[in-house]
Amino acid sequence: MPVYNFSAGPAVLPQTVLKKAQKELLNVQESQLSVVELSHRSKEFERIIQDAEGLLRELMTISEEYAVLFLQGGASLQFSMVPLNLAQNKKALYVNTGAWAKKAIAAAQAIHSVTVEVIASSEEADFRHIPPISFEQIEQQAAYLHITTNETIGGIAYQTIPKKKDIPIVADMSSNILANDYQTDDFGVIYAGAQKNMGIAGLTIVIIRKNLLNQKALFAPMLDYRVQAKNNSMYNTPPVFAIYMAKLVFEWVKEHGGVSQMYQNAQEKSALLYDFLEDSQLFFSPVEKRDRSLTTIPFLTDNPFIDQQFIRQAQEVGLKNLKGHRSVGGMRASIYNAMPTEGVTALVNFMEKFELENGGK
Amino acid sequence: MPVYNFSAGPAVLPQTVLKKAQKELLNVQESQLSVVELSHRSKEFERIIQDAEGLLRELMTISEEYAVLFLQGGASLQFSMVPLNLAQNKKALYVNTGAWAKKAIAAAQAIHSVTVEVIASSEEADFRHIPPISFEQIEQQAAYLHITTNETIGGIAYQTIPKKKDIPIVADMSSNILANDYQTDDFGVIYAGAQKNMGIAGLTIVIIRKNLLNQKALFAPMLDYRVQAKNNSMYNTPPVFAIYMAKLVFEWVKEHGGVSQMYQNAQEKSALLYDFLEDSQLFFSPVEKRDRSLTTIPFLTDNPFIDQQFIRQAQEVGLKNLKGHRSVGGMRASIYNAMPTEGVTALVNFMEKFELENGGK
Repeated sequence: MPVYNFSAGPAVLPQTVLKKAQKELLNVQESQLSVVELSHRSKEFERIIQDAEGLLRELMTISEEYAVLFLQGGASLQFSMVPLNLAQNKKALYVNTGAWAKKAIAAAQAIHSVTVEVIASSEEADFRHIPPISFEQIEQQAAYLHITTNETIGGIAYQTIPKKKDIPIVADMSSNILANDYQTDDFGVIYAGAQKNMGIAGLTIVIIRKNLLNQKALFAPMLDYRVQAKNNSMYNTPPVFAIYMAKLVFEWVKEHGGVSQMYQNAQEKSALLYDFLEDSQLFFSPVEKRDRSLTTIPFLTDNPFIDQQFIRQAQEVGLKNLKGHRSVGGMRASIYNAMPTEGVTALVNFMEKFELENGGK
Repeated sequence: MPVYNFSAGPAVLPQTVLKKAQKELLNVQESQLSVVELSHRSKEFERIIQDAEGLLRELMTISEEYAVLFLQGGASLQFSMVPLNLAQNKKALYVNTGAWAKKAIAAAQAIHSVTVEVIASSEEADFRHIPPISFEQIEQQAAYLHITTNETIGGIAYQTIPKKKDIPIVADMSSNILANDYQTDDFGVIYAGAQKNMGIAGLTIVIIRKNLLNQKALFAPMLDYRVQAKNNSMYNTPPVFAIYMAKLVFEWVKEHGGVSQMYQNAQEKSALLYDFLEDSQLFFSPVEKRDRSLTTIPFLTDNPFIDQQFIRQAQEVGLKNLKGHRSVGGMRASIYNAMPTEGVTALVNFMEKFELENGGK
C-alpha cells in the first residue's frame, strides 16, 4: 500500500531526491566523504551552494539586483529580522490574513523602534478571504508592506500580488514558493522556510533586493542581512546538508518543467480536491472560492466526531497527517510540489467512499 | 585506501551513524516515511527529540536544574543571544583566548545595553596559552564570565574550568563538548554547534541553568531562551534531521563508553601526535604544553613552502583537510570523537615518512 504524506511541513519530498541523497550519504562527488562531513569551505560544498543559488535564480528568474541568502531559524526568525533590518525608526505596514500573518505582526510589534500599522485584515471574516488593499490610502514612505502569500492554517492565498507604487512588498512565501506564478521583481524581500517546497527543516531562503540591504551594521552579525550577503551566507557554518537537499529539490523542479509547470500541477491537483468538495454532501471547504490556497487545503464536515473518524480511517489506508491544525480543527491536505497526483486521487477516492459509507446527507 | 577527514567542522562522523542514517533515510521507525519528511509534531519525531535530550542528559550528567535546547544559527548566534538574554543593562566578563573568544567579545560589545569587560587575555603571547584568571579581582555581580573551552584555530583548551565563586560561567564548548572531563554543574550556560562532536551543521545545543532564564520577554521570540525552553525547542519547526543525527551520535557515544571513554580516547589519540611533534626535527606545535587542545591540533614547519607540500602530499594519500586556518597557516589536525585511532596513526606515520624524505633538520 503506498503511503501519502499530507503533512504541512516538514513535508513530502520527491522519492528521486531522497534516493539520490541516500546514495550520496556515504560518498558525495566521489570524495569518499559524506556530504554531511564536508567542510563548508571545501571545493565540493562551494559547488553545492553555488549550484543551489544558480538553480533558484533560474527557477524564480531572480536578477542580479537581488541577493539570495541561505539562513537558519525558519520564517519565525525572519518575522524579527525583517523589521530589525528594514524598519527601525520607521513604520512598517502589515496585512493580517491569518495565523502566520499574526505571528509576523506580533514579532514586529515587539521591537520598540518599529511602528507597526495593520492596513487590512480579514480577521472579522474568520480569515475566509484575503482582504482587499487600497494603495491610495497607504503611506508610501513606510519601510515596507508585509504579506503572507499563503496561510497554511486558514488555507487562503494571494492569487495576485497587490499592485504597489513605491513601497517594497515583503512576503512570507514559505508555503507556496515554487508553486505559484508570482514574479520576483514584484517583491522587495521574499523569505521562506525550506521544509515545505524546497527541502528539509533547518534552512530559510531570503531573496532581498540589494538596495534594501541595511547600510548600518545591526547589533548582531548573524541577524544582519548585509553581513550575510557580504559573506555569501557563510559568515559562519551554514546548514550544509539542508542546502544540499535544496539543491537536489531545485534540480528536480527544473527537470520537471520548472515553476510554471509546478504551478499548473498545483492548480490541477488542488482542483481534484476542490471539485470534489463542491459536490460533496458531507465535506466542505471553509474558504471563499476566489482566495483558496493551491497548496494547503483545509476541509471539514459539520461533525467533529466524523472528522476524527475520517482522519483515523484515512491514516489506516496510508493517507497520513490529514488532521487539521489544532486551532481550526477538521482536516487539512497539504499538497506541495512533491505530492503526486496519485496521492490526491487516492485521497478523493477515499473521501468518496467514506461519504457513501457515512450516508452523505 | 581509507580516507581520513581532519576537517575542523563540519567534520568526520562515525561510519555506523552514517550507515544507520542512510538506511533510515527512506523509512524511519517503520513509518514508510523519510526522517526528513516527519512532521515535528509527529509521534515519531517527539520520540527522536526526547531520546536525543535524554541521551545528552545522561552523557553529560545534566540535572533537571538545567534546560536543554535544540536551536539553530550556530555558536555565532549564541555570541549575541547570550548577552541579549543574560546581560542587558549589566556587565559581562570575557576571557580572550583566541579567534573564537574574540568573536564572542565583539558580538557582546555590539549590544549597546551590555557592558563588556575582558578580564584576562593571552593575545600578547599570540594565544599560546590560556591566561590565568584571578577570581579575587573580578566583579562577582557581573552577569556571567564567558570562556571558550577550546580554540579550534589557536589549538588551546582549558584543562580545568576556572574556580569560581557566585558568577555563572558561560562556555562556548563547540569544539570539545563530549570529549573532556568538565562537569556540567560548573557552568551556568554551555553552548555548542553540533557539527564537530554532535553531528551535522545546522543544530546548536544550549544547556542553561533554569534560574538563568530571562524573566522578561526578549524583543524576538526566536532569540529568547525562555520562549525556547517553554516550547521544548519547538516554538517553530526545529532542524529535524540534524536533531535525528545528534541522537544517533549520542547513541554511538554511549555505546562506546560515554564521555569518560571519549576523553580518554582524546588524550591517547592526541598524545600520538603530540609525542611525535616533541621528537620531530621538522614539525612543531606552536602551543604551550600545559594548555594544548586534545581535539584541534595545529602544527607547522618553519617553512611555509614545505607546509604546502606536506598538505598536498597528505591529501594525495587520503589524509584530508589538514590545511591550517588561513589566519595562522601551517597545518591543523582536528581529532574529534569520530576520528579513529587508525586515522591519527596514519597521519603520524605519514609525517614520519615525510620528515625522512625532507631531511628533517
